[in-house]
Amino acid sequence: MRYQHVTENCLATAIGDTGLSEEAFAGVLLEAAPAHDRLCQLHAAGRLPCLEVVGAADDLEPLRVLAADWRARLADVVVLGTGGSSLAGQTLCALSDRGFGPAAGGPRLHFLDNVDPDRLAALMAALDLSRTGLAAISKSGSTAETLAQVLVLLPHLEEAVGRGRLAAHVAVVTEPKDSPLGRIAARYGLPRFDHDPGIGGRFSVFSVVGALPALMAGLDFAALRRGAREALDATLTAARVEEAAPAVGAAIAVGLLQEHRITQDVLVTYEDRLAPLGLWYRQLWAESLGKDGTGTTPIRALGTADQHSQLQLYLAGPRDKMFTILRIDTAGEGRAVDPDLVRRPELAYLAGKRMGELLHAEAEATAATLARHGRPLRLIALERLDEAALGALFMHFMLETVIAADLLGVDAYDQPAVEEGKRLAREYLAAGGGR
Amino acid sequence: MRYQHVTENCLATAIGDTGLSEEAFAGVLLEAAPAHDRLCQLHAAGRLPCLEVVGAADDLEPLRVLAADWRARLADVVVLGTGGSSLAGQTLCALSDRGFGPAAGGPRLHFLDNVDPDRLAALMAALDLSRTGLAAISKSGSTAETLAQVLVLLPHLEEAVGRGRLAAHVAVVTEPKDSPLGRIAARYGLPRFDHDPGIGGRFSVFSVVGALPALMAGLDFAALRRGAREALDATLTAARVEEAAPAVGAAIAVGLLQEHRITQDVLVTYEDRLAPLGLWYRQLWAESLGKDGTGTTPIRALGTADQHSQLQLYLAGPRDKMFTILRIDTAGEGRAVDPDLVRRPELAYLAGKRMGELLHAEAEATAATLARHGRPLRLIALERLDEAALGALFMHFMLETVIAADLLGVDAYDQPAVEEGKRLAREYLAAGGGR
Repeated sequence: MRYQHVTENCLATAIGDTGLSEEAFAGVLLEAAPAHDRLCQLHAAGRLPCLEVVGAADDLEPLRVLAADWRARLADVVVLGTGGSSLAGQTLCALSDRGFGPAAGGPRLHFLDNVDPDRLAALMAALDLSRTGLAAISKSGSTAETLAQVLVLLPHLEEAVGRGRLAAHVAVVTEPKDSPLGRIAARYGLPRFDHDPGIGGRFSVFSVVGALPALMAGLDFAALRRGAREALDATLTAARVEEAAPAVGAAIAVGLLQEHRITQDVLVTYEDRLAPLGLWYRQLWAESLGKDGTGTTPIRALGTADQHSQLQLYLAGPRDKMFTILRIDTAGEGRAVDPDLVRRPELAYLAGKRMGELLHAEAEATAATLARHGRPLRLIALERLDEAALGALFMHFMLETVIAADLLGVDAYDQPAVEEGKRLAREYLAAGGGR
Repeated sequence: MRYQHVTENCLATAIGDTGLSEEAFAGVLLEAAPAHDRLCQLHAAGRLPCLEVVGAADDLEPLRVLAADWRARLADVVVLGTGGSSLAGQTLCALSDRGFGPAAGGPRLHFLDNVDPDRLAALMAALDLSRTGLAAISKSGSTAETLAQVLVLLPHLEEAVGRGRLAAHVAVVTEPKDSPLGRIAARYGLPRFDHDPGIGGRFSVFSVVGALPALMAGLDFAALRRGAREALDATLTAARVEEAAPAVGAAIAVGLLQEHRITQDVLVTYEDRLAPLGLWYRQLWAESLGKDGTGTTPIRALGTADQHSQLQLYLAGPRDKMFTILRIDTAGEGRAVDPDLVRRPELAYLAGKRMGELLHAEAEATAATLARHGRPLRLIALERLDEAALGALFMHFMLETVIAADLLGVDAYDQPAVEEGKRLAREYLAAGGGR
């Protein structure tokens, strides 16, 4: 496996009364078994295209051609989209970008997932539009924010490159149906990539929605899918539910909610390249489970920074949180502290140590401290951070979320409550600009 | 006032049973009155330097000289520090930086609040060290992460600029006592700015800790303090507790926790320039209140993106959250959508509308939808976003937090639980690099 899933510190046998009791764990695992079965059956029946897409082989060739062209020709690519149309791309591209452009070369990527006029103006002032590409991603083709971004930016881009060249600078990802974004693509003859209507936004990382930004960043998307496929296969072929890591994870989260009112799930990552993962996970978990008055709140925490911000609350506040620490062995990485600089005894612990050793020691110490304080905690340990491992992680969290939804008795795939706000925003805007 | 504080949608009279009842509100306001009094008395007795510092006049002149020098001479400034030594600076500097360098010119600022070896290597590869400044901020002078950053970076900087010029490229902010960081400053003859030991990290935004990065970014720090002073004076001189906005805010948060088990406080901001504010607020609220088994979880949400990620949970999940929406009238800002591009009826709502109108309409619609779903919600409305308004906001949240701590019966100023993790990390590292 690409990752190890260690859950013993969620259990009362390890951390005492604040952990999940043996009885509660056995009970929820008993429910997780049929949930796991239902997942396997739906998959076998071809009803889960969001999972099936990891086995697709030849669907991305036109996208590869576009990405190769843009990577060779453009300095900046702006990805327009929000929610599920942006967070997977942000997470993927962070793998090769440390804030100074992709390590593998190619254009800088900018994700615009808000409609802030100030930021848009700054972006337009900073970029050379004649060497800029726009990738507009909206599943429905009618997302107000994405449409507004496109409609405001297109005239400026047209001015910079000429109407005839727009199609060399703009690409669209949307469902193959009539929609405002689809009609814009048609009017300007823009390259358009179909999004499978059977794949929901927050489950779309392995589809064209994730592939477009990932290929622009020069990532190995086939490896991402390969890692995901391995994790999926391991879950589908697990003989017993205890051997399916996502089912165990879901059972523990739901069991802790039911037994101890653990209403908050904190995902802690330590590497800067993983910082957006928590944002992707937040949407997946919140939108899939938060309905019918149930669900728990997913929280992104970033080690080591949040040790100096949130750890006090996590250790000594209410016992209403469980923790997932994502740990990668970085001990061999980074520059070492010159021992000559730290000859005083109180700094001896840093002498000759690499930055990656400090990062790793902090993750270990935080995990140990949480467990000592009786806070339920699981570890997901990756040997390394690459496309295949990230693919496995995405798949793990997707399966875990789907099984947790089944256990909670909610539909993992809908989001019925958000339409009202969208309708109101359109009405306010039509009535007078939201004043 | 720089801001309006509208809390009616937290009350049962406005949103029904899920709001705070009249009795509970009256009860908690009765407790807030003496808490407000105690705050006024502590301030009058000179016991709250974190508030008093907003009245300081001449303390920053040496810092202004340094900032003017660095701004004229350097291309990049890296701020080393974590928690309270970084988040205030990040929040302040976002006011003038849209991700492409400060609008007012001067060096680009980079905040390193993690010890990620990969990011550090990318930073070193991307920067011209001969035109780079390092600002190391650690109140105690012994923060492991900050020391490791300094110790790893110093030799490289020395190589680039020469030992004799190090003092022109590195500055230190720490308490005026003996400490590892203080000794490094002494050894290399670095400029050192004293941090008042009476001001805790999360309360340090108005001190030299906030001033150093703010002045590097060309911000008007005097205006920040002026706005804060106005908000402080308004609270100190309020004749009745109902007229002190921070006391009302604290009473509502604590009242909702006690009456309805509202355990999560979500701060929603819409402008990209305010994105780091939620991180600063998270530390302030979590570290001040999260102790003795009490406290609530502060959550940062970013509109419009989180409407496409968290809103489903917020509207239809458990009733365990209250919301603060920070609203700024951006309706007059940004580019407008060309009406010729949106002649179809289903897009008519966008015709001629500015990006800022859409942003504003979204904030309004989200607020209305939360209230309609009976979710407790307050608005903080700013007329504009500038240093003075931001100063008032920081002060509001600080006072609110201190009063909430008093109501919960905890010490707002300590963080006793985090020492264990720090000690363990040092031990793991000393024992073998956290393996």
